[in-house]
Amino acid sequence: VCGMEWYGYAALGILTGFLSFLMDLSVSKLLRAHQWLYMKLEGHSLLQFLCWTLYPSCICVVGSSFSHSICPFSTGSGIPEVRAMLAGFEMPHYLSVTNLFTKYVGLICTLAAGSTIFLGKVGPFVHLSTMVGAYLSKLCSLVQTNKKDKAAGEMMVVAAAVGVASCFGAPVSGVLFSVEVMSSHFAVKHYVPCFFSTACGALTFHLFSVWSGDGETLQVLFKTNFPTALPFYPLEIVLFALLGLLCGAVSCCYLFCHRWILQVIKTNPIFIKWLTTEKALYSGMVAFLLASVTFPHFAGQYMASKYTMKQLLTSLLDGRQWTSESHNASVQVDPKPWLEWSSSGSSVYMTLTFFLLMKMWMLVLACTLPVPAGCFMPVFVYGAALGRLFGEGGAYVLSGLTSGQQWASINPGGYALAGAAAFSGAVTHTLSPALLAIELTGQFSHAVPALIATVLANARSRSGHRPSFYDAISISK
Amino acid sequence: VCGMEWYGYAALGILTGFLSFLMDLSVSKLLRAHQWLYMKLEGHSLLQFLCWTLYPSCICVVGSSFSHSICPFSTGSGIPEVRAMLAGFEMPHYLSVTNLFTKYVGLICTLAAGSTIFLGKVGPFVHLSTMVGAYLSKLCSLVQTNKKDKAAGEMMVVAAAVGVASCFGAPVSGVLFSVEVMSSHFAVKHYVPCFFSTACGALTFHLFSVWSGDGETLQVLFKTNFPTALPFYPLEIVLFALLGLLCGAVSCCYLFCHRWILQVIKTNPIFIKWLTTEKALYSGMVAFLLASVTFPHFAGQYMASKYTMKQLLTSLLDGRQWTSESHNASVQVDPKPWLEWSSSGSSVYMTLTFFLLMKMWMLVLACTLPVPAGCFMPVFVYGAALGRLFGEGGAYVLSGLTSGQQWASINPGGYALAGAAAFSGAVTHTLSPALLAIELTGQFSHAVPALIATVLANARSRSGHRPSFYDAISISK
Repeated sequence: VCGMEWYGYAALGILTGFLSFLMDLSVSKLLRAHQWLYMKLEGHSLLQFLCWTLYPSCICVVGSSFSHSICPFSTGSGIPEVRAMLAGFEMPHYLSVTNLFTKYVGLICTLAAGSTIFLGKVGPFVHLSTMVGAYLSKLCSLVQTNKKDKAAGEMMVVAAAVGVASCFGAPVSGVLFSVEVMSSHFAVKHYVPCFFSTACGALTFHLFSVWSGDGETLQVLFKTNFPTALPFYPLEIVLFALLGLLCGAVSCCYLFCHRWILQVIKTNPIFIKWLTTEKALYSGMVAFLLASVTFPHFAGQYMASKYTMKQLLTSLLDGRQWTSESHNASVQVDPKPWLEWSSSGSSVYMTLTFFLLMKMWMLVLACTLPVPAGCFMPVFVYGAALGRLFGEGGAYVLSGLTSGQQWASINPGGYALAGAAAFSGAVTHTLSPALLAIELTGQFSHAVPALIATVLANARSRSGHRPSFYDAISISK
Repeated sequence: VCGMEWYGYAALGILTGFLSFLMDLSVSKLLRAHQWLYMKLEGHSLLQFLCWTLYPSCICVVGSSFSHSICPFSTGSGIPEVRAMLAGFEMPHYLSVTNLFTKYVGLICTLAAGSTIFLGKVGPFVHLSTMVGAYLSKLCSLVQTNKKDKAAGEMMVVAAAVGVASCFGAPVSGVLFSVEVMSSHFAVKHYVPCFFSTACGALTFHLFSVWSGDGETLQVLFKTNFPTALPFYPLEIVLFALLGLLCGAVSCCYLFCHRWILQVIKTNPIFIKWLTTEKALYSGMVAFLLASVTFPHFAGQYMASKYTMKQLLTSLLDGRQWTSESHNASVQVDPKPWLEWSSSGSSVYMTLTFFLLMKMWMLVLACTLPVPAGCFMPVFVYGAALGRLFGEGGAYVLSGLTSGQQWASINPGGYALAGAAAFSGAVTHTLSPALLAIELTGQFSHAVPALIATVLANARSRSGHRPSFYDAISISK
């Protein structure tokens, strides 16, 4: 009863969801192997240092040389290329099956390097899903010979949405993100295919997670434990708005650094020589540098570097106040997620500030690595840390000022949520991270504050016609 | 730093949110007056009958004659007119301030008639907010003389989104609903103004609710109490998909009846004569008929007619199984929301089926009333009842078949949620009700099932190129 293309959309969603699940599974296995090895070497500082630094470096070298030698188009985020293709440019080599395979393996390597390299999954996954979509639309056009071109274009729009959706298991914000990032006009007739396909993708992703024993039922990716009775006071809206403006300002700073390094890479002769001839050596050295900075016995103890990306985000989104809880430590029963944040004995404010300052340049440096990698997830975590610091600081100041019980129950996790949404929204010049943050955590109570913070951060970062993160990459190419 | 239009968007959101809050407040006062009067007459059946039937009839007559005599354009939903205006037709009389005032008062009358008339708020509110937007854009163009036409068009798009958003305090689905319903193409540059304005509107709506003493903090409109630990089993997805198909089939039936009655009204000479000359009499008689059918001492006891729309929805979305709970009635402590559904002593299956059968023709009849009224909310409640019946039945059958503890804990409230989303989505041919249902209840755990049910219901109701609810009205005009 329905056209061939609907089977195509379903297949696209299911395939991409399965690929996403398989990637998460392999990455978590590789990360666990690294953690296991590191734990086993407890007591031997030098060996631990070697294990900590050489493991990600080797993985980066492998990933970089692998993707360079098989398909050099597979490096980078991929979103700028997808945008160009949707705008009508023909780039067939960017959609080949070889590229699909290379990018997939390369992305697993990048993600397995973990939170030391601090790179993400979204951008390359959008590219991956576009490749799957292009392949499927070729198959469809073999079966039915008419209306070939139209179907291919539609499939690309749908595939971009599916990429985001099955990456996080978040169907709605996947569609919105692709609408915002990809093009300047959106045909409403693509709406239903997009949602159909993203629902298939998200469902597949969640179902495989359930069947692999990750939980009894479909769960959000980052579970949180916010208090439900009183999520926030009405007047806290002002604080959320301030946080949005702060995130906007910091994102301007980050985007400036990012543009600067893109410029340096393009013009500095040493960089040009290295990045054309010695890609593997360059990525190995950068990874080694980043890993040695985050070594837990050195500076890493001040930036919770033992956590993976997922653990970082979960700990930052925790629903309790770290400072007040750490004072009355006697009543604790469950594991404290902020333990790693104050392992060195210093206060969490110190650790969070240090984390923010260090990760800023590390993130900018990591973006220059010639491997398939995205920057959305790191930016999201960075924003969560910013929001957490703001929330903890705000709770401390307000409870000091008013010395009452009322403000003592401020939930800094909500600020982390809003901060993550606002900062990633400001960097990419989109609003859908507000929805994505809610879909990732399942905390609907903070929808309005997160949206307000994101809108204000966007207003701040867009003022003066600054280019967004993806615009900057497109311009530099 | 920012243009005049941004102040306009903020003002639009705040004004519409305030209007929405004011309307909800007056409607709830009028409804409470009716309930108080009805309770006071306990024991006098005839007086109770007169109170039950004459109150909504009088209100309908007042609303209908008021809107007819001052501004005849104010009747009906308004969404088809807004669509036509967005498509480029000039209809200045639909945007006058007189119309705004008339529609506002008329809509309060309609809503105050309560669940006997069973009409909703969304459609007229979109029209109202468009009128506010048009007025504000005129003000803006007085201040800055250039780029007049462009700003007016943009303001209309934004206003349509704000209408939905501030009606329910649901910013994200407001934007999505207006994107889906209003036009065939969406310019992404309208995206940020839309979200900015809807966030302002939703925030204003929520804040006024808080300040009026409705709760301690910002809450969703319909609070639910779903179990959070295990929202649903993975295999229940199949049941949700079946529910989606069922909702699609029922929506086809409803849309057919609706088209039929629109046809009858246009062609039958008696109807034509009545509706042109005796509008007030016609609406009074229809309201009297509907009210006497729902009289609680008569057929109303089988359809929970004592509940207002809000209470109906809250009771249907309850997170417990009605049938199993009513057996072990001894352990109950809190108020049972399903009490009204089994007040006559008959089983809840009977009551729900009777409710669905009766409301079908009552809803179709109520849509012919010449008052400002929407059909989204009634359809939403109808879908919730359908989902509830499906969920209760499914839980009963499965616990009988498997006789195990596992399926005994199925949550029929989740089916009510998915059914509401799927049915209203199928009737209007949109997908955003899936998100709206989540924004209204704050239950993020059921996002994926609701989306799947909605997509399938849409597929069912769109097959064969049937026109949607709004298309049908547009065609008949």
